[in-house]
Amino acid sequence: MRLGVLGTGMVGRTLAARWAELGHEVTVGTRNPASQLARSDRAEAFSAWLAEHPGVRLATFADAAASAEIVVNATAGGSSLDALALAGAEHLGGKILIDVANALDPSRGMPPSLLVDSHESLAERIQRAFPDARVVKTLNTLTAALMVDPGRLADGDHTVFVSGDDADAKAEVTRLLTELGHRDVVDLGDISTARGPELYLVLWLRLWGALGTAVLNVRVVR
Amino acid sequence: MRLGVLGTGMVGRTLAARWAELGHEVTVGTRNPASQLARSDRAEAFSAWLAEHPGVRLATFADAAASAEIVVNATAGGSSLDALALAGAEHLGGKILIDVANALDPSRGMPPSLLVDSHESLAERIQRAFPDARVVKTLNTLTAALMVDPGRLADGDHTVFVSGDDADAKAEVTRLLTELGHRDVVDLGDISTARGPELYLVLWLRLWGALGTAVLNVRVVR
Repeated sequence: MRLGVLGTGMVGRTLAARWAELGHEVTVGTRNPASQLARSDRAEAFSAWLAEHPGVRLATFADAAASAEIVVNATAGGSSLDALALAGAEHLGGKILIDVANALDPSRGMPPSLLVDSHESLAERIQRAFPDARVVKTLNTLTAALMVDPGRLADGDHTVFVSGDDADAKAEVTRLLTELGHRDVVDLGDISTARGPELYLVLWLRLWGALGTAVLNVRVVR
Repeated sequence: MRLGVLGTGMVGRTLAARWAELGHEVTVGTRNPASQLARSDRAEAFSAWLAEHPGVRLATFADAAASAEIVVNATAGGSSLDALALAGAEHLGGKILIDVANALDPSRGMPPSLLVDSHESLAERIQRAFPDARVVKTLNTLTAALMVDPGRLADGDHTVFVSGDDADAKAEVTRLLTELGHRDVVDLGDISTARGPELYLVLWLRLWGALGTAVLNVRVVR
């Protein structure tokens, strides 16, 4: 598949690297590729990471979305709507838009609280802003390393969720999740069900604190 | 133990019945015992339930709290602070106050949204309103039947959480949970960590919808 991963943070890098490794054609989108390559302020500079991943291309948000069959929102949740506006509604229409973001609000102390509540999720806001995109929420409940390698925890015996209004889009995303190694994919329902996994992040953050590791997940027992 | 269970709904009844069965001295508290016994509008009238549970006593919120060593808030989350005010700060001071409530808001459609968000939990509001009580949040993530009989699902191989500022109170509550059959009790930390299990309820409600059963839980895999 041709995948456009929007966002150059840890999540975007991890997904892009793994999908390129699996043979997909991956473009990472950023606001300004030239300034992104010039930045050296990150723990690991993006330019160095990109040099180690020759299968991954860097482009603007718009170019990454335009060239992709499936677009992935891996930007910070608080700025996702801005990033997707730069990607352009005309480059998202009809396409699957996988939303893995969390709308964290670090301004009120740590662990961060959220910019969403039980009345509306980020995924719903994205679907409302881009009604022609086929938004599927998934993977936001996992640390990046587990998104692409669930088997490193309990042989992958734990759960991920999908939420979205388009059944075909969810089936396609479930195929991508299975390819990454996910064995238990629970379809929660329409895009409003994304409120569940988005608010769960507050529990996830507290579990991280209590257990001392982000390599954790839940298994839905039923 | 002498347990005062505030609330006559399904959760209060289920906890009271099981703890009485285990040999504890249980009083159920309600706003007005006489009118509670006169009500016949419930699917199963409380008076009939009480007649079948001779080990359980009915009293006012204040009497139930005054006579108890441990008080349990099993009222509807939206009216818990009012119920606890009727119970009386003077009857809660120094005591363990187990909060199992969820602050559901059914006024905006079903499944209900919440009256809390990631900035403050109901348990924190209760702790702030009754600073001398030793509040422990737990069990709000389970349907009543699983609270008192976790073994009916996957032999009890799933997780419950405790949150609270008082380590001794959490240890005592953990003993009560273990007595009920809970095998994996995760201490999330101070009372602010109750935001995690309280917001998780939104995911729980969607899982109920997707799976078609409330007899579900998560196991924390780590």
